Parts: sequence; C-alpha cells; structure tokens
Amino acid sequence: MSQAVSSPLYAAIDLGSNSFHMLVVRHIDGSIQTMAKIKRKVRLAAGLDDNNALSLEAMQRGWDCLSLFAERLQDIPTENIRIVGTATLRTATNVDVFLEKANQILGHKIEVIDGEEEAATIYKGVAHTSGGSGRRLVVDIGGASTELIIGEGFEAKALTSLKMGCVTWLERHFKDRQLTVTNFNNAIQAAKETLQPILEQYTEIGWDVCVGASGTVQALQEIMLAQGMDEVITHAKLKRLQKQAMLADHLEELEIEGLTLERALVFPSGLSILIAIFELLEIDSMTLAGGALREGLVYEMVDELKQDDIRARTIASVQSRYQMDAIYGEQVANMAAKLLSECQEDWIAESQGDVLLATAAKLHEIGLTIDFKKGGEHSAYLLQHLDLPGYTRAQKHLLGELARRYREQLTSLPEQHALSSTSAKRVLRLLRLAVLLTHRRNPDLEPNISLSSADDKLTLTIKSQWLKANPLTAAELEIEANRQSDIGWPLSVVEY
Amino acid sequence: MSQAVSSPLYAAIDLGSNSFHMLVVRHIDGSIQTMAKIKRKVRLAAGLDDNNALSLEAMQRGWDCLSLFAERLQDIPTENIRIVGTATLRTATNVDVFLEKANQILGHKIEVIDGEEEAATIYKGVAHTSGGSGRRLVVDIGGASTELIIGEGFEAKALTSLKMGCVTWLERHFKDRQLTVTNFNNAIQAAKETLQPILEQYTEIGWDVCVGASGTVQALQEIMLAQGMDEVITHAKLKRLQKQAMLADHLEELEIEGLTLERALVFPSGLSILIAIFELLEIDSMTLAGGALREGLVYEMVDELKQDDIRARTIASVQSRYQMDAIYGEQVANMAAKLLSECQEDWIAESQGDVLLATAAKLHEIGLTIDFKKGGEHSAYLLQHLDLPGYTRAQKHLLGELARRYREQLTSLPEQHALSSTSAKRVLRLLRLAVLLTHRRNPDLEPNISLSSADDKLTLTIKSQWLKANPLTAAELEIEANRQSDIGWPLSVVEY
Repeated sequence: MSQAVSSPLYAAIDLGSNSFHMLVVRHIDGSIQTMAKIKRKVRLAAGLDDNNALSLEAMQRGWDCLSLFAERLQDIPTENIRIVGTATLRTATNVDVFLEKANQILGHKIEVIDGEEEAATIYKGVAHTSGGSGRRLVVDIGGASTELIIGEGFEAKALTSLKMGCVTWLERHFKDRQLTVTNFNNAIQAAKETLQPILEQYTEIGWDVCVGASGTVQALQEIMLAQGMDEVITHAKLKRLQKQAMLADHLEELEIEGLTLERALVFPSGLSILIAIFELLEIDSMTLAGGALREGLVYEMVDELKQDDIRARTIASVQSRYQMDAIYGEQVANMAAKLLSECQEDWIAESQGDVLLATAAKLHEIGLTIDFKKGGEHSAYLLQHLDLPGYTRAQKHLLGELARRYREQLTSLPEQHALSSTSAKRVLRLLRLAVLLTHRRNPDLEPNISLSSADDKLTLTIKSQWLKANPLTAAELEIEANRQSDIGWPLSVVEY
Repeated sequence: MSQAVSSPLYAAIDLGSNSFHMLVVRHIDGSIQTMAKIKRKVRLAAGLDDNNALSLEAMQRGWDCLSLFAERLQDIPTENIRIVGTATLRTATNVDVFLEKANQILGHKIEVIDGEEEAATIYKGVAHTSGGSGRRLVVDIGGASTELIIGEGFEAKALTSLKMGCVTWLERHFKDRQLTVTNFNNAIQAAKETLQPILEQYTEIGWDVCVGASGTVQALQEIMLAQGMDEVITHAKLKRLQKQAMLADHLEELEIEGLTLERALVFPSGLSILIAIFELLEIDSMTLAGGALREGLVYEMVDELKQDDIRARTIASVQSRYQMDAIYGEQVANMAAKLLSECQEDWIAESQGDVLLATAAKLHEIGLTIDFKKGGEHSAYLLQHLDLPGYTRAQKHLLGELARRYREQLTSLPEQHALSSTSAKRVLRLLRLAVLLTHRRNPDLEPNISLSSADDKLTLTIKSQWLKANPLTAAELEIEANRQSDIGWPLSVVEY
C-alpha cells in the first residue's frame, strides 16, 4: 500500500477592488484540489477619494481582512504563496501606506501587478482550466478594471487591461441607483468608448471561441441556469436580462431569479460592460472559464501542470487519482471510435460528440472505485461533481448521464445542453456497444465486427463461430439489441 | 503524475448447491475492488436423486453456466483464479462425471473442498471484512450445508460444517409447500437436532459477537431494512418474520415486504434453520458479515491484505486511494480524543462512539477530493457508498451524516442506528470542534484549550491572548458556539 502523506499547500491571494480572496490548494497527481476559500468584501475601490487616495476606513477594512488571511498563511511554505494587488492598488496615490502595514500583517510581500501582468495571469488561469483548441478571446470584468486577452494554447497574443469595472461603472453611471434606459445606455456607450482603442487590433487578430472569467460572467451563468436556460451566454440573453433588470426602478428593488444579494449591486454595471463588449466586438457566444487570476497564480507556482491538451491532462489525472484501468479505458475508446467510423458520415454531427464519446469511454468505470453495486450511479455522481478542467458544466452533466447508463438497464437520456438529443443518444448507443464488446479487457480477445447505420437503425455484423465460442458476449449482445430496440433505438445483430 | 496502469484481476468461483457465483476483483492499494459479478441459479442440489447421483439435466445446467464463466476467465492469470465446489459436489456419487467436463470447459481445475475447509475459508472472508475485537461466532447457511465457526482475529478456534441447508430443508420439511406451524416446527426441531452435537463445545468456547454470512442472513437484513427496522437481527424479529410468512398458506403466495422473488422459495427453510440456531445457542443478536466464502478465496490469494485491525486497514486504504492528508487526519483524531478525554466519564457511553469519532476525524475530508464546493455532501456520499470493511451499514450511514456536517452550517442528525442519538450528537459536536481547532493543519499551531462538560453543556476555555493573535479561529469559534447553542446544544467559549 502506498503511504498517504501530507502534500504541500499553495496559497493565492488576490486583493481586488471589490473583494479580497484567498485560495488554498494542494497539488495531487496532476490536479489542483481546493482545500479552503476565504473571501471578504472589502470594497477597496469605494474608498478612493477624488484625488485617488484611499480612505483610512477602507485601508482598515483591508488590514482586518488580511489579519484573517495571515493566520492561515502560517502553515504554508513561503515559496508556495503569491499575493497580488490589482486595479485599485495600482491607482491609489497612498498605496505605500496601505502596503507597509499590510506586508507586516501578512508576513509576506504583496506584489501590485500592472494591468498587463494581470491580464497575462488571468490568461494562464483560463488556459489551464479550459478545453478546446483554436484561438480564444478571454474577457474578465473586475471591480475597477476589465482585461481582454487573445491567446492560443498557453500563449497570449494580445493583452489589454482597461480602466473600467463593475464598481467604477456603478459609481459613474448608476450613481442615482436608478435602473433606467438612460443609465444603461450611458453605461454601455461609455464602455464602448473605452473599448474603441483596441477594436482594430483585436478584430485583426481574431478568435474562434470566447470565454468569460470571474464574478460578472459567473453571476450571469448562475442566473441563466436558475432560469432554465442553457449555459451559453449570447447577446439576446443579455438583453433579456437587461429588460428583467429594468422592471425594477431602483437598484435596491432588483429581483432576478438566480441573482445573489452579494452580486446584485454591481450586476447592472457589469451587465452593461458585457453588452458593450458583445456589441462592439460582435461576439456570438461566450462560455464561462473554469478559472482566472487566482488559478493563474496557482498554476504558475505548480510548474509541472503545463500540458497543451487540458482535457488529456484531466483524463490522465482522474484515471491516476482514482486508480482506474487506463489501458482498458483506451481500449474502450478505440472500440468506440472504430464503431463510429463505420457509421454514416456525420452520424454524430457535432465535433464535440467524438470528444465526449472518447471521454466517456475512458472514464465510465470511475464509479466502480466507490462500489460495484450501483457503479453507474456512482460514475454519474463523480463525473458531474468533479472539477474537470477542459469540460463545461453541461458537458460534465452529459458525461455523467452517459456513464450512469453504460451497462445493464437502458433508459433514455434526460434533457441536456452539451449535444443535440440525437447525437447524445447516438453517443450513448456506441458507448454501450463499445463497453460490451470489450468486457474481456483484452484487445486480442475482441471480436471482429462491423457496424452499419441507416439513420437511427444500427446493424452489427459478427461471426456466428465467434459467438458460439463466447456465449457470455453472445447472450449480452442479444439482451443489448432488445434493450436498445425496446426504447426505440433499433439495433440488430446479424451473424454470418 | 503517477502512471495509471492495469492492475491484475483475481477471480473466485463458488459452485454452490443453489447458485454458481463468479466474482472478479482488482487489488488496489489495500482494498479489494469488485469489477464484475456473475451469478446463475443452477439448483444443483435439486438434481440429486435418492442415491445422491446428479441428474444429467442438473449437470448440464452447471456446464452451461461454466461456459459463461469460462469466457471471462480467459483474461485472468491462472494463479489468480480459485474455483471451489461445496456440499452438493461433496455428496454427489457421480461427481467425477461432472468435474471432468467442467474442468475442460473452464480450462482450470475445480477443487471440491471439504466442509472444514469451507468453514475455514468462510471465516477468512468474514475476518477480512468485519471489524471489532473479541471472539466471534460466524453462521453461514448455504443451500446444502451450514457452517458454524468460532474465531478471534484471523484465527478460527472451532470449525463445523453441518449437512443442513436452505435447499435441503425446503425439500425435507416444506415439500408440500405449505407454510404451516407444523412444517415450521418440524424444520426448526430437525435443525436443532442437527446442531445438538456441537452445542457443548461451542457453548464452552463461547463468543462475544455473532455475525451471519451469505444469502439467508442477507435476505433477512434486506427485509428488515425495507420494513424500517434497524440492521440487528434478533430472535424476536425472526419470530415476527415467521408470523408474517405464515399469513400465506402456500409458499407460492408468500409476500413479505423486502423479500425478493429469487430468495422467496428458500426463505422459510432458511428462516427455520436460523431460528433453531438462535434458540439452541441462545444468541442475543447477529449482524451481517461483509463477506464469506468467495471473499475468503480472494483474500487468500491477495496475501498482503492480512492485517489484524481491519478498520485500521480500511482507513489507511481509503486515505491512500483518495490521496488524503493522513497526517492531518491523525491530528484531528488526536484533538477529538483529547476533547473527549476532558469531558465527564462516559460522556459518550458506547465504546463504538470513540471508534466512530476517530474514523470520522480521519476521513471527514474525503469529499474535498471531489470538489471543495459541497465538500461535506461529497464526504457523506462517499462514506455511505464506499465498501468499508470493518464498518456496518448503520455505521457507514452515521459516518456519512457526521462528515456531511463537519463544517459550516449545523443541522441536527437524522435517525440512525449506529449509536444512541445522544451519543451521535456528542460525537458530532466534538468532531466539529476538533476540525475547527486544527484548521491550521499543524500541531505546533494548535491552541492550548480545555473542555468541560455538564451533560449537554460544553465549556471551552482558551487564552484570550491566543485568540487575539489568531482572529480567524477566534471568529470561527464564536460562530460555532452560536451554531451549537442555536440548535439546543449549549457551547460557550471562555477566555482567560
């Protein structure tokens, strides 16, 4: 038995304009595991006067928070700690006063990083937690600054930090706390003017996908999910939320299903900035990133996690952490890919379908590590709740529903937002066949089969001699053909 | 990242008098993980004629089943396979005919083991999967034989295999399929006569606890749980079930909540044998063992799992498999034990209370390996569903409910059957305090505290100087005192 030991802790602290955050993690087998999160709403930006000096009250709120963090930092090696200050501390004319006492309280040095470094770190946090290939535009709306980055893989190609944030926009455009068209229009217009200088460069570089990071985008996604929408943010949905917001006259009366009290105050200002970004940069859709600044700080400290294919890293890490049989996972994935290749072209239309089929093939057995009984249920629980960098929430949900059904009784899939329902069904059918045909866990003992598809009708052809020699597989194939056919997914097994 | 690899499979096959079973497992880090289970109701015993010769039909049912098993065996190294035959094969005069073809089908040799070896292997299976100390009486009622073993740790002190089983007793005493008092009385009386020869020896050796293994006892436990009883089998409950059974006239009409169709036929006969054992040996209560013959075969093959303290092995294995911080777990357990030692004597009355407090302290963080968010929920899910040799179902349930509440909001515990509700509440209170006081994860940074109890009232005394220097713990202690007091568990923090 390998010895279980303490693994070193890492801490990332981010002194933001709205909140201070502390994140404590461990590095376990290719994964970052969160051990503690502490957050205090310090509202530092609100303490800047007209001359950009921080009030003593605001500084005191900051110091009080840091003394809480300091207690927790004592257990963590100095080289595993990074503490950064952002927009408000960049701006404050009396930052030295704040920092002198803050450094003393923490016993560690705070770095006030410039906008470009902040953007670069955010990009690292996104790159380490998001899957997919191609060029990505990252948008992070903070309290007093907004970062926009274009990058590919781990490399950023354009880094911008703009002096515009949900706290500063609140004070500038919703000072009267009225949710009027005029206030919204002014906020959106001002954001567009702030964005204007980067428009040409960003449009020229271009991007394939767009992801949003941090509070504003996260709050939006929570609202959309609470209201039964899927997780993809579009301009139409943002305008719908603006309309919902304008049903209240005053910010204090704002009630939107899924919006937490904590985020309510800065919601209209953040929404305005996001609408401006969507309109000016002509963004079609945006998804939520799995991490941003704090994650970037952590991943910078844990060097060895740099791997280009985030999803491959995630799969390998999960297989290793759960002591799964990775060689068998590969066998099932290969069988599934072979089956898919024999179907009609584009039998599974979305390219994400292949990715999810392969992932489900590699991870479907994870539930057996909890117990054989109800193994599929356990797989679903784990895949839906594990942090899986590179996979969105909707994808994790579908992966879980696929794994829940990888063997035994077959029920149709519930509503999901990762693939069309036709494709999801087809992924499940191939997954089940691939698992069944590889149950011997040895590629040399796989049957020689071929598969053909005519829309939803599948025909599997297999030698009768082989079936005779392998009565368990033969019996299971017969049951499987009945199960799929019984719920309206015709499958026949033809012997030759 | 450590490399995920295939680990070797083991197979145990048991050719029983009622069913043939195949169990395929992996050995992972001190744990046995089930990969497949195949079972066929072959009813071999029913094929014995008056001269104890197996009918060709019965043999054919057996061979058909073995050809299914054979397919699966091809992937498993010969030295990792054990196949045993029991009572019916011991009895059959034409066993050679059956074995010759059976060995050929399997490609592996079947060992027909004698009753004593069967009893010894069952005892190994129980010893490897059951916790607790002291002398234990093990009862395993099979189709054609019943094994009774007394042992301590891994050592058996008395081994008996009696020619009495739920299939043979069905044919002998319920041949007319009538559920009459007379049939039950005859079956119970005959079982007592069969048991009589061992009574003196077994009573003289004596035992502290009694566990039941295999189908009959498992079916009983499922019925009791389905009917809302706790998991402990007593004579009163058995007699209640006999009454329920006698509400039906014929076996075919038998309907008992929680009884599966598969077990129904042999339920009255198995119940009669168990009642006889309870009455003759004057057994107070019996719990279900985590394993029996097949598990004994597996554990015999995987040598390195032999460790005297099954619970310690389970905890170490879970900590290792889930890459938990075992050193921190030890710290929390030590803190919890210290807190308990300062309370009134017997503040937690049951000795199992200490065990469960220590186990919860060592495993409460397991849910963090899934995700920080809802970590307590994930801990509950894992502890309640993981196979934890040495812990009963009721204990796993309580461990999960404790871990669900180890931090943040506090709600009262649901009904459970592992401890009295007072003790369970007290275990939870100490667990939460121990977690809070060790959150720095470094024994050198623990505060110097003392605790006193006056029934449900707890007073924690701590230096005010220390609290000043550790504002995070101070704030959390204040919140915790409110949380416990608010649900009626008074806790005060006194500074000095």
